[in-house]
Amino acid sequence: MRISKAQIEQAHERIKPFIHQTPVLTCSTINKMAGASLFFKCENFQKIGAFKIRGGMNAVLTLPQDKLANGIATHSSGNHAQAIAFAARQTGTKAYIVMPSNSPRVKVNAVKGYGAEITFCEPNQQARETALQEIVDRTGAEFIHPYNDERVITGQATCAKELLEEIPKLDAVIAPVGGGGLLSGTALSVLYFSPGTVVYAGEPEGAADAVRSMKSGKIEDAPYINTIADGLLTKLGDKTFPIIYEHVKEIFTVTDEEIIAALRLVYERMKIVVEPSCVVPLAAVLKNNKVFAGKRIGIILSGGNIDLSKLAGWFNAA
Amino acid sequence: MRISKAQIEQAHERIKPFIHQTPVLTCSTINKMAGASLFFKCENFQKIGAFKIRGGMNAVLTLPQDKLANGIATHSSGNHAQAIAFAARQTGTKAYIVMPSNSPRVKVNAVKGYGAEITFCEPNQQARETALQEIVDRTGAEFIHPYNDERVITGQATCAKELLEEIPKLDAVIAPVGGGGLLSGTALSVLYFSPGTVVYAGEPEGAADAVRSMKSGKIEDAPYINTIADGLLTKLGDKTFPIIYEHVKEIFTVTDEEIIAALRLVYERMKIVVEPSCVVPLAAVLKNNKVFAGKRIGIILSGGNIDLSKLAGWFNAA
Repeated sequence: MRISKAQIEQAHERIKPFIHQTPVLTCSTINKMAGASLFFKCENFQKIGAFKIRGGMNAVLTLPQDKLANGIATHSSGNHAQAIAFAARQTGTKAYIVMPSNSPRVKVNAVKGYGAEITFCEPNQQARETALQEIVDRTGAEFIHPYNDERVITGQATCAKELLEEIPKLDAVIAPVGGGGLLSGTALSVLYFSPGTVVYAGEPEGAADAVRSMKSGKIEDAPYINTIADGLLTKLGDKTFPIIYEHVKEIFTVTDEEIIAALRLVYERMKIVVEPSCVVPLAAVLKNNKVFAGKRIGIILSGGNIDLSKLAGWFNAA
Repeated sequence: MRISKAQIEQAHERIKPFIHQTPVLTCSTINKMAGASLFFKCENFQKIGAFKIRGGMNAVLTLPQDKLANGIATHSSGNHAQAIAFAARQTGTKAYIVMPSNSPRVKVNAVKGYGAEITFCEPNQQARETALQEIVDRTGAEFIHPYNDERVITGQATCAKELLEEIPKLDAVIAPVGGGGLLSGTALSVLYFSPGTVVYAGEPEGAADAVRSMKSGKIEDAPYINTIADGLLTKLGDKTFPIIYEHVKEIFTVTDEEIIAALRLVYERMKIVVEPSCVVPLAAVLKNNKVFAGKRIGIILSGGNIDLSKLAGWFNAA
């Protein structure tokens, strides 16, 4: 059964007290470069610094009280871990987060800062899942998947809903795609709140599972994984892929060089802090001039959680 | 004769078509750290990336047509150079900019990008002034000083005017001080538009001429110059100092370590790009808890033009 318009509207009302309505920014210099009117939905200014709080918060707030009392759990090295930790604190329950032992210190500290209990594991999928299962068995905590969960997809959909309500008559909306939670939610909100608008996605060449899955019609692995867009390494799930397959017109891939150029542009011209995954759609728009020129494009800037010490290396190498 | 309220109001109307009304942002994490309510006036989002366009634009727009036709000139390695270059392009005249030969490439390119004619000189004050005088003699261009000019001070005053109109009942406003153009303009706008509000300033320890001048009652040199806040190296002028001496309650100095800590906070928590000079007032507020706790404080974030490759070095050293 498909997520309904009413479910997205209810999710939005539910999470509103806990999230920011993030601003939509424009930049005349970048518009000139793109030959288009770009409207940036700035989820880097969101609570926890990324859109992930929308899905996490919606999932937690829909749990029954007795279930919630056991706590919530997930495995993540990134923004979803912070989202679950933050959501647990907001609702007065406990968060159990499984993180790979090589997680960046800044992300570990952020999760700790929200009061979550961290369990470190070997940095592979099997170890993550084993550690998580052990926690769920022991505590009865509710597992909230980073993207392959309808409560999460419905929450992420509220981001495009806000954008479409603030900026009418967009010709297209473009979002990044990793596991597809944000992209599938975006596609549903466009379908319900601005049906004439076309949905696109941007994906790193070094994690190109989604573009491949769109071609074959089933969930595929990426040919290889090697990109600085560390928020987009995961592959689509059985709840996100069908929505994306049906409602997304095209997925464009971009190289790390193109991601770095877009990153630099956003820092230097828009003066905002974003993470590499976040500028993948902008890089795709700049690269595919023929598709986007002359149009009104909504771009989801997904987050701003970045290890700033890496910027210099990227910019100097480029 | 003192700059009047009407002059500031007229300057604001005059420059409005050419500038952004920049947003005022807040950050709950930083508020918690400061124990105060901080309202950040974000001139890093201003045209050319800094407040300087306000003064530059006001100076250019008040020139008579025949004078304007000869062009405008200044010496600057920083944001004022961009302001004059941008203002010249907006008014269809020519900009002559004297820049020290060691100016960062990114700043030279920005000035070139606005179509200005650049003359390089040895990196010292004498060489700058000689090169500028030669240009003025040859072309009849109007020299617009970066700060010691009433047209410039009046333009910079419009920044605090916007802040005070948007956020009423501020207990204090704090701005950075270099040559004093922004600070003297801020003091005048507070005097006219929010007379109960107290004006403070932040200054780097490594360019502490203003705090010394406030003590002695006359314009002093800094004991030494050594700070990453490269926009605040200049000393007060005979037009800015009297206003500051009369209307600014206190100037607080901060170390480069404190500047870097504040810089990191703004990047990581507010997710915006600012330059080191810009966070000196925030560093001063965090350092002087007894003065600011429990109050509503307006903070002028002056600009966001920064060589991003330097961030890593600062953050890793701290």
